[in-house]
Amino acid sequence: MSIFEKLESEVRSYSRGWPVVFDRAQGSWIYSEDGKAYLDFFAGAGALNYGHNNPVLKKALIDYISRDGVTHGLDMFTVAKREFLETLNEVILQPRDLDYKVIFPGPGGANAVEAALKLARKVTGKESVINFTNAFHGMTLGALSVTGNSMKRGGAGIPLVHATPMPYDRYFDGTYPDFLYFERLLEDSGSGLNEPAAVIVETVQGEGGINAARLEWLQGLSELCKRHNILLILDDVQMGCGRTGPFFSFEEAGIEPDMVCLSKSIGGYGLPLALTLIRPELDVWSPGEHNGTFRGINPAFVTATEALRTYWADDELEKSTKAKGERVGAVLEEIAREYPDAQLTAKGRGLARGLEFPNGELAGKVCAAAFDRGLLMETSGPDGEVMKLLPALTTTDAEFTQGLEIITESVKAVLSH
Amino acid sequence: MSIFEKLESEVRSYSRGWPVVFDRAQGSWIYSEDGKAYLDFFAGAGALNYGHNNPVLKKALIDYISRDGVTHGLDMFTVAKREFLETLNEVILQPRDLDYKVIFPGPGGANAVEAALKLARKVTGKESVINFTNAFHGMTLGALSVTGNSMKRGGAGIPLVHATPMPYDRYFDGTYPDFLYFERLLEDSGSGLNEPAAVIVETVQGEGGINAARLEWLQGLSELCKRHNILLILDDVQMGCGRTGPFFSFEEAGIEPDMVCLSKSIGGYGLPLALTLIRPELDVWSPGEHNGTFRGINPAFVTATEALRTYWADDELEKSTKAKGERVGAVLEEIAREYPDAQLTAKGRGLARGLEFPNGELAGKVCAAAFDRGLLMETSGPDGEVMKLLPALTTTDAEFTQGLEIITESVKAVLSH
Amino acid sequence: MSIFEKLESEVRSYSRGWPVVFDRAQGSWIYSEDGKAYLDFFAGAGALNYGHNNPVLKKALIDYISRDGVTHGLDMFTVAKREFLETLNEVILQPRDLDYKVIFPGPGGANAVEAALKLARKVTGKESVINFTNAFHGMTLGALSVTGNSMKRGGAGIPLVHATPMPYDRYFDGTYPDFLYFERLLEDSGSGLNEPAAVIVETVQGEGGINAARLEWLQGLSELCKRHNILLILDDVQMGCGRTGPFFSFEEAGIEPDMVCLSKSIGGYGLPLALTLIRPELDVWSPGEHNGTFRGINPAFVTATEALRTYWADDELEKSTKAKGERVGAVLEEIAREYPDAQLTAKGRGLARGLEFPNGELAGKVCAAAFDRGLLMETSGPDGEVMKLLPALTTTDAEFTQGLEIITESVKAVLSH
Amino acid sequence: MSIFEKLESEVRSYSRGWPVVFDRAQGSWIYSEDGKAYLDFFAGAGALNYGHNNPVLKKALIDYISRDGVTHGLDMFTVAKREFLETLNEVILQPRDLDYKVIFPGPGGANAVEAALKLARKVTGKESVINFTNAFHGMTLGALSVTGNSMKRGGAGIPLVHATPMPYDRYFDGTYPDFLYFERLLEDSGSGLNEPAAVIVETVQGEGGINAARLEWLQGLSELCKRHNILLILDDVQMGCGRTGPFFSFEEAGIEPDMVCLSKSIGGYGLPLALTLIRPELDVWSPGEHNGTFRGINPAFVTATEALRTYWADDELEKSTKAKGERVGAVLEEIAREYPDAQLTAKGRGLARGLEFPNGELAGKVCAAAFDRGLLMETSGPDGEVMKLLPALTTTDAEFTQGLEIITESVKAVLSH
Repeated sequence: MSIFEKLESEVRSYSRGWPVVFDRAQGSWIYSEDGKAYLDFFAGAGALNYGHNNPVLKKALIDYISRDGVTHGLDMFTVAKREFLETLNEVILQPRDLDYKVIFPGPGGANAVEAALKLARKVTGKESVINFTNAFHGMTLGALSVTGNSMKRGGAGIPLVHATPMPYDRYFDGTYPDFLYFERLLEDSGSGLNEPAAVIVETVQGEGGINAARLEWLQGLSELCKRHNILLILDDVQMGCGRTGPFFSFEEAGIEPDMVCLSKSIGGYGLPLALTLIRPELDVWSPGEHNGTFRGINPAFVTATEALRTYWADDELEKSTKAKGERVGAVLEEIAREYPDAQLTAKGRGLARGLEFPNGELAGKVCAAAFDRGLLMETSGPDGEVMKLLPALTTTDAEFTQGLEIITESVKAVLSH
Repeated sequence: MSIFEKLESEVRSYSRGWPVVFDRAQGSWIYSEDGKAYLDFFAGAGALNYGHNNPVLKKALIDYISRDGVTHGLDMFTVAKREFLETLNEVILQPRDLDYKVIFPGPGGANAVEAALKLARKVTGKESVINFTNAFHGMTLGALSVTGNSMKRGGAGIPLVHATPMPYDRYFDGTYPDFLYFERLLEDSGSGLNEPAAVIVETVQGEGGINAARLEWLQGLSELCKRHNILLILDDVQMGCGRTGPFFSFEEAGIEPDMVCLSKSIGGYGLPLALTLIRPELDVWSPGEHNGTFRGINPAFVTATEALRTYWADDELEKSTKAKGERVGAVLEEIAREYPDAQLTAKGRGLARGLEFPNGELAGKVCAAAFDRGLLMETSGPDGEVMKLLPALTTTDAEFTQGLEIITESVKAVLSH
Repeated sequence: MSIFEKLESEVRSYSRGWPVVFDRAQGSWIYSEDGKAYLDFFAGAGALNYGHNNPVLKKALIDYISRDGVTHGLDMFTVAKREFLETLNEVILQPRDLDYKVIFPGPGGANAVEAALKLARKVTGKESVINFTNAFHGMTLGALSVTGNSMKRGGAGIPLVHATPMPYDRYFDGTYPDFLYFERLLEDSGSGLNEPAAVIVETVQGEGGINAARLEWLQGLSELCKRHNILLILDDVQMGCGRTGPFFSFEEAGIEPDMVCLSKSIGGYGLPLALTLIRPELDVWSPGEHNGTFRGINPAFVTATEALRTYWADDELEKSTKAKGERVGAVLEEIAREYPDAQLTAKGRGLARGLEFPNGELAGKVCAAAFDRGLLMETSGPDGEVMKLLPALTTTDAEFTQGLEIITESVKAVLSH
Repeated sequence: MSIFEKLESEVRSYSRGWPVVFDRAQGSWIYSEDGKAYLDFFAGAGALNYGHNNPVLKKALIDYISRDGVTHGLDMFTVAKREFLETLNEVILQPRDLDYKVIFPGPGGANAVEAALKLARKVTGKESVINFTNAFHGMTLGALSVTGNSMKRGGAGIPLVHATPMPYDRYFDGTYPDFLYFERLLEDSGSGLNEPAAVIVETVQGEGGINAARLEWLQGLSELCKRHNILLILDDVQMGCGRTGPFFSFEEAGIEPDMVCLSKSIGGYGLPLALTLIRPELDVWSPGEHNGTFRGINPAFVTATEALRTYWADDELEKSTKAKGERVGAVLEEIAREYPDAQLTAKGRGLARGLEFPNGELAGKVCAAAFDRGLLMETSGPDGEVMKLLPALTTTDAEFTQGLEIITESVKAVLSH
């Protein structure tokens, strides 16, 4: 392992909790080079909703590469991109009556967020953005400025300005009316709040600790934005592509954001791809005013198209995700009930699930215990106090049985210690 | 073509100059869906130094995908990553006596730049950065703030601060001493220049108009940075990986930057990959202080490793690039001489070459004429006044003959009109 | 009046509500050039706590000028400055057990605020400051960034950053716990709130609408700042020098701010003078690191000294201010009770008093009606909905009788209309 | 002296070079409390162009105070203000054919600068401002951001952004064309320079080291601003009111700035007063969009009016200032010639004069030696290397003889040591 220690920066993180060298992967399983199998309930932090090396997508990918389909095409027109756009339109946008144009903002989620923030400021002529407590939107300067985590913010080396955090749903455990402070500040011309260009929000905060906003809170936010003429940017990078059940995580709330950021699982196979969807009226940039080298990796278009066709032509995946999610949630709640003194809280929606511990140390120990038993999970939340599950949506019932047993055992091992 | 027009944002750019739908590609050739072949002298804006779908890399890639090698692995340890790091060390760093640690900053060049800027500010406790006139470093907020182009800067929607532009090499045609203004401001405690954390520079400004800095200017800059305790960030995203001949474009100048940004061709096959190389003393971030989802796409590690092994084990590619570059340069100079009234200037180094026209309209017309004749090129420079060539380094002599003839004809067609 | 209209910028404001040309003034009275007397219940927006041209101070001033005492002395040592510092120490600081050093930050209140903000940032190494809704701290860029009024903020022409507004006392009418949001954001390392260098607060917000913070709220704020290691800057520019009764408006709360800003009435006679009082440990600036031309107008030192000696050697003024304030408050409450439909609210503490109307139009009409009857008052609050009284503390009972009658009549005239 | 040391912040500066307690002052003389007379060649850093306690102004001031003229009048119309505006118009603006409106921005020079910067940004919708190397414009955040001195900038505690320094006249000793870099950056759309709202400039940089711009440089700057549609703000706070001869220091250059900042000597007697003069088209602020407490101290209007009437009704003062200035300059040049090894340089224009030493230590020693001999001067320049003379314009020939002898002796004492 010495080349990693010798050459890779200390900023590396996931390799610290899972200190083995992985080689192969299939579905919900990832294998270390010595052949040990790990059940992966983290799934690329949400980038592998269809599992590792999904065979349907793999076939399309190898076919495309084999026939010398264009790999790198800047933002040129290609057959693969056309098929992707057509499929996105037919399978996703039209059936949901969503009227969006597509920006290819760059290869990752942070690019999708940067593009949305830039465009929102350009369109409105305002600089300020409202973000929410414990938000995570990325590590480039624009995205970092709307991210909550103080350690990550400290990495910037400059003051991060132009954003004001507002309390996310149930930040005060539901004791106070939603948007109490936010709307009062907006209505009071003496409040000192810079008039915001946009609000950026996640429907479930993954990095923030699997905080799932209630649908009525999301609806309230959407209405507030409309009332005050603020653009609503929905960052669906982690929760989109079916993570909570429906393709877009905001569908159940019945809202229509002005902009939607997609990445992670949109490419299907784990290859970098990102989209910023925008209402057509917001399409004001000149050609090239935002550009970049990796704004359309064609193999990712191919796997993205195949994933949309395979999994989103009907509502099977949505239903199964909800069912599986409820099963996971039930087990987590059961665990929480089993250890009343430990004050555990089950959290989440769909297959974005978490178990909150009183502190990060405990949650970390449980994840370590699970790793020893062959299960990959991570912690999240401001102090890493939430055990976080983002299993592939294609995880089988048997695999869930196996994984949930490991979780139950791991919690027991740590809490009974 | 209607789905593009219907669904894709007006910000799209390359598809405007090349309004056909591409399908397949091989080496220096890219084919539209109706079968027309185009000789690609733009090569993914420098992302395809080894050509489209390079067969050696393709084989390794298909093998890896076929055997279910890990595709998406966050920043976990993987066999593919280990091989990449080992190969980078053995083939590139050790032979050049370069002592760098590697940050995987995210999938694209802008991520490499953002990470470098963040880290430089964190390390030094200073906010300000010096960039150069006509620099291009990317479109995320941090990278955009050190980019020169006013149209692109305008896309930000907020004031871009914390950077001060200094004149790039020969900004005044060599009339004035290098770094005259820069060093005077640094030495004068009353100058009003915020003390800079870092300087960020390209050895050849691609987007800026194929402006190749003289080696002595780069050496002078490196010395100035040392004298004034300023970190030198070399953005080798476009000019690295052999574009100008040697692997790093700064090798010929004999300098050792504090940080080096790599992306584009480092992945070899056009798949997104980026590196920020840093001097070991600068490795001060805590685990996870900078992170992201796509910081190590394993198929890109595989093709990157294969590319390093295939092309950089000896100095054949470096030599051939220089030779081919000189040939291209000679033809461009000949063209310039042929039209003395048009005031054309041949520019560049290695296989980053340009022909400067008096205005963007002429350069655009020449590129359009070349496209009609089956050759892809782009314009660059503040007003698009430079015809820009970034052919694959693997382009054959026969292909150069063919391409240079098209260029000669296209210039003739436009200028004789 | 034509020279004003011809030459003075349209930004002028007070002259719009009181469109006469004033000439002389004495005590609580100011006279227009045609000899009409106006009872001045605005008193230089709090700069004339001892009345216009107070005879005791006037004598000292004329004596000083007559004997050619130094007028302008930069920040040189002068006899007048020494007497001021000695008197401030003996009459104000020592009896209150306050251990402050004195910065002479420039001539006006905004200078006192700018110096406090600069120093707080320098001392802590943090950039962010917490201000409160409807705060007013001045119009220079630093002071404006912590001011609430959106119209005034808009005058800056650049985004005002580095400050986050928190709800002032009873912003939600006491329905929610004090500092609920503020402290939660501080305690949550994922909140996204930049760690603040300082909090800046007024005990009674004059410009904000005569909002008087409860003493327990001020105590809570002081304790919160101590708990979180945040500097507490008390802007006593308008409410200090006895406006609410005691010399410092925070005395009754029993708190000791880290920095105190004084101006307006500290000079006594209406001549520009400002002080920033700081805890000795915070005295970290180098000589001249903050300077300026008008940081100690000696005639103002003379009148300031005389005012301290005359009015603050005992507690007579404090007692009388409280008594007079209660009388004014009682009348305002009576008026409010008299017009239950109009939903008026009496506000304030000491001789900072207000009557809140449902909207700015009504408040403005009442002030206009009072002006017609020979009484000067102004409106304040985000929409100018508060009729604001800042009478000289030396206003006699008879003058209060007269002024309060005019107010009663004016309200009647407007509301019965 | 203990109360100063005990109570006054260490940031105090002038009292360090002149460690005596001053009491009275008259004309060019200031007296310590023990009766020692000092010839004052610093004159309130340019705030006392008509000398200390000028008897003509003193009479008007005592008359006004005695008759209970309004002292503090916010921005109300007053008789004193009307007379000031009328006199300013008749004596200064009309004869010079200058069409300006007057903002009363607050009591000091920094307020005049803050108002100008705010308004320039508001008018143009641009944030960036160009300042010059070694500029000094004040210590409030807006003014400090366009000030050059790094020690003073460091006092801000936040990054000072939105300003880019350009080389002042003869920054490179005249070797390079004026505005070479500035204009090139403006013309190059890829330069990375944010389009500036305004340029702010001093005609002679006092704090910067008595750097007198050539008239043709000022003309060139004015033309450059016109060509590029940039507002020209002339900070005449220290050099206006006759310091260089004419009332406005820019008159000789024949230019008409878009905004002019005045303070220091405009009040005549050393009382705080400041003006921002603006072209009428720029008068776009709403009533109260910029305001403040001390925007029109009426006693200062009275002395200002009297000063204009007494000294500016004819060109006597202008002529005498030029003549006296030339005399001082000649002596300084003579001194410089006398010590060829010391490499002294005489600098300045009118009665803003300086003698540059090779370092700040020498200049400081000369000032200290002069103080010992009863003469007040200060150092300026980035390292305090310039001995700075700003004597009252009313200094008599005999006083100059006396003062220049002391200077000659002091230089001799230091350099012969």
